[in-house]
Amino acid sequence: MSASPAATPATVEKVAEIGEVETRYFTFGAPPDEMVLESGERLGPITLAYETYGTLNADASNAVLVLHALSGDAHAAGLHAGEATPGWWDSMIGPGKAFDTDRYFVICSNIIGGCRGSTGPSSVNPSTGRPYALSFPLVTVGDMVAAQQRLVRHLGIEQLLSVAGGSMGGMQVLQWAASAPGMVRSAIPIATTARNSPQQIAFNEVARQAIMGDADWNDGDYYGRSTPDRGLAVARMIGHITYMSDSSMAAKFGRKPTKEFREAKFAPSFEVGGYLEHRGHSFVRRFDANSFLYITRAIDQFDLTNGRGLDVALNSAGNTQFLVIAFTSDWLFPAYQSQHIVRACKRAGLDVTYCEIASTYGHDAFLLEVEEQTHLITHFLRRISNDAHRG
Amino acid sequence: MSASPAATPATVEKVAEIGEVETRYFTFGAPPDEMVLESGERLGPITLAYETYGTLNADASNAVLVLHALSGDAHAAGLHAGEATPGWWDSMIGPGKAFDTDRYFVICSNIIGGCRGSTGPSSVNPSTGRPYALSFPLVTVGDMVAAQQRLVRHLGIEQLLSVAGGSMGGMQVLQWAASAPGMVRSAIPIATTARNSPQQIAFNEVARQAIMGDADWNDGDYYGRSTPDRGLAVARMIGHITYMSDSSMAAKFGRKPTKEFREAKFAPSFEVGGYLEHRGHSFVRRFDANSFLYITRAIDQFDLTNGRGLDVALNSAGNTQFLVIAFTSDWLFPAYQSQHIVRACKRAGLDVTYCEIASTYGHDAFLLEVEEQTHLITHFLRRISNDAHRG
Repeated sequence: MSASPAATPATVEKVAEIGEVETRYFTFGAPPDEMVLESGERLGPITLAYETYGTLNADASNAVLVLHALSGDAHAAGLHAGEATPGWWDSMIGPGKAFDTDRYFVICSNIIGGCRGSTGPSSVNPSTGRPYALSFPLVTVGDMVAAQQRLVRHLGIEQLLSVAGGSMGGMQVLQWAASAPGMVRSAIPIATTARNSPQQIAFNEVARQAIMGDADWNDGDYYGRSTPDRGLAVARMIGHITYMSDSSMAAKFGRKPTKEFREAKFAPSFEVGGYLEHRGHSFVRRFDANSFLYITRAIDQFDLTNGRGLDVALNSAGNTQFLVIAFTSDWLFPAYQSQHIVRACKRAGLDVTYCEIASTYGHDAFLLEVEEQTHLITHFLRRISNDAHRG
Repeated sequence: MSASPAATPATVEKVAEIGEVETRYFTFGAPPDEMVLESGERLGPITLAYETYGTLNADASNAVLVLHALSGDAHAAGLHAGEATPGWWDSMIGPGKAFDTDRYFVICSNIIGGCRGSTGPSSVNPSTGRPYALSFPLVTVGDMVAAQQRLVRHLGIEQLLSVAGGSMGGMQVLQWAASAPGMVRSAIPIATTARNSPQQIAFNEVARQAIMGDADWNDGDYYGRSTPDRGLAVARMIGHITYMSDSSMAAKFGRKPTKEFREAKFAPSFEVGGYLEHRGHSFVRRFDANSFLYITRAIDQFDLTNGRGLDVALNSAGNTQFLVIAFTSDWLFPAYQSQHIVRACKRAGLDVTYCEIASTYGHDAFLLEVEEQTHLITHFLRRISNDAHRG
């Protein structure tokens, strides 16, 4: 929306795509070496789903870790065999793209608590032979990042050139910088916050109540039976409204009626309603309701300021260089939250660049404003990479 | 929030309250004289719940009709016997208040389709002896206003000094001005719109899906059995988020934890979540889920522009004087929607005053910004009233 042709980076020359990719799995922490969670509970074995794109160089200095949002997964780019839809950030990852796979070794890691190949409430608890359900321990963004550190080390990487992600992915970026500063050369938190506002918590709370209010939720014990699809669909619909903006919805839908007439008295009569219903019902085919509860709870509990101020939390990240990106129409993660991160970086004496991209797409802009982000990230990573070679 | 002591109108001298009031009921349209709805369907008999405050003067020229929002009812001011909580706009209606009952005869009318004493889906269909449920016909804001016209005439009033209301109440105000211009000397639409945006429709759509996704909804046929309380509670919680603002939630709740610890793993852990849960669960005790469906559908379908432009719709309202009020932090009914009304009034050659009140309360401001609204409405009504006496 905002990028003029003149702003197109000269580096976007190649159009070759990544091609076919496969999700891989890293398992660690089998008893008695379980991972100790922030709660003090132990969890293991733990599997993390991840994908990689590009090639790790000889001194393992070109690795970029990409982290996803609430409903994302390890499949960030390329195509899975037999599928037509590429990964969720394919527009940003590949040869000549923002995360240039001709230059960088890009890793995308899933999270614990999830349901897309990593250990979560829908996983089988090896000690019982049945899915964990609500016996799965509460996890935090800190736990997610601690598990990812194991993965990164497993891949032979001591320091990441960069850690990048939007929304909850951005929370993980901040957590990485705070808890493993020596492993993070640079950080790109996008459309995110150091802690959720009460409005953000409120939307997540209502989404959780929609799931738990579904009679099929059954206190989380629904595996192998009827699943809480209707509650989860409502939760997803709420999310979708908050990912768009008033103006993007006006441009996309206006007050157009649904294309197909349906007999039911309260079937959606406007296209926007039909769209949300469709997105809600698609979501339940690929996501687990309990994972939605665990992950949104981790998001709400995330608070890097921790009563001490964000600058204190980031103090240890003395050598990490930051590129903070926000979007003007993002009302779910408003720009003032990114500015809060920027101010804390400044107070902590860190090298930080801030860019607020003009966009009408709302929170979804981090997935859609490709040109402007490509421009910013390409040049930022070049600089970090060159510094690394000089350093 | 915004009113300084200096802005307090000199007219607010009395503090006497209205005291005890009773809801009254007006029934009309018994077969074969049913009301013909905009859909062409016939409905009757119809009962409208209403209350009145103050005294109608000899020439019936001092009547002000007040109209309520989605979840409101006829009880706008004063106290019901044995109750401690006054009506929903008690801060604005009474001796010396904005709608000064020493000067004006204030009527508050409920709506058809509702569940607070007026005929709606939970009413017994006299032809079957059972609640209408989804056999109740779809109603529109136009139908609501047509029924209210019958009530106003029944009270011996040919012309209202003013019609006022916020949110859906404001939609009814606009509809009154468009469809019964001879009966409306002045109109005060507050925090409202001539037609819902797709974002507003989206929130209503998800709320409806929450209700219809509740297994107890049973295609609307739940009277006398288990009611869809959990779905309706979720619908209400979504609404509450949209009635507040990011900053009002930050001021009211911040990230304070809930006061009471609850064992359940996903019980609300932040006060904002506990508050929403409480409001959701209180709501189901006083509201009918099917009414929520019928009324939100009427709100979404409301479109006074009707493809012709709002100025054309308001053209007939040549003698109606408008006071349009919006609030800066209202993101559910943003100020641009009120400005759209103002521009249409101007194009239609109408006398219109616009005020955008600085407030952090979000959409709820029309219930909370008492001083500033009192100032504006007091003087507006004085002017209309004086004109009427001269005219």
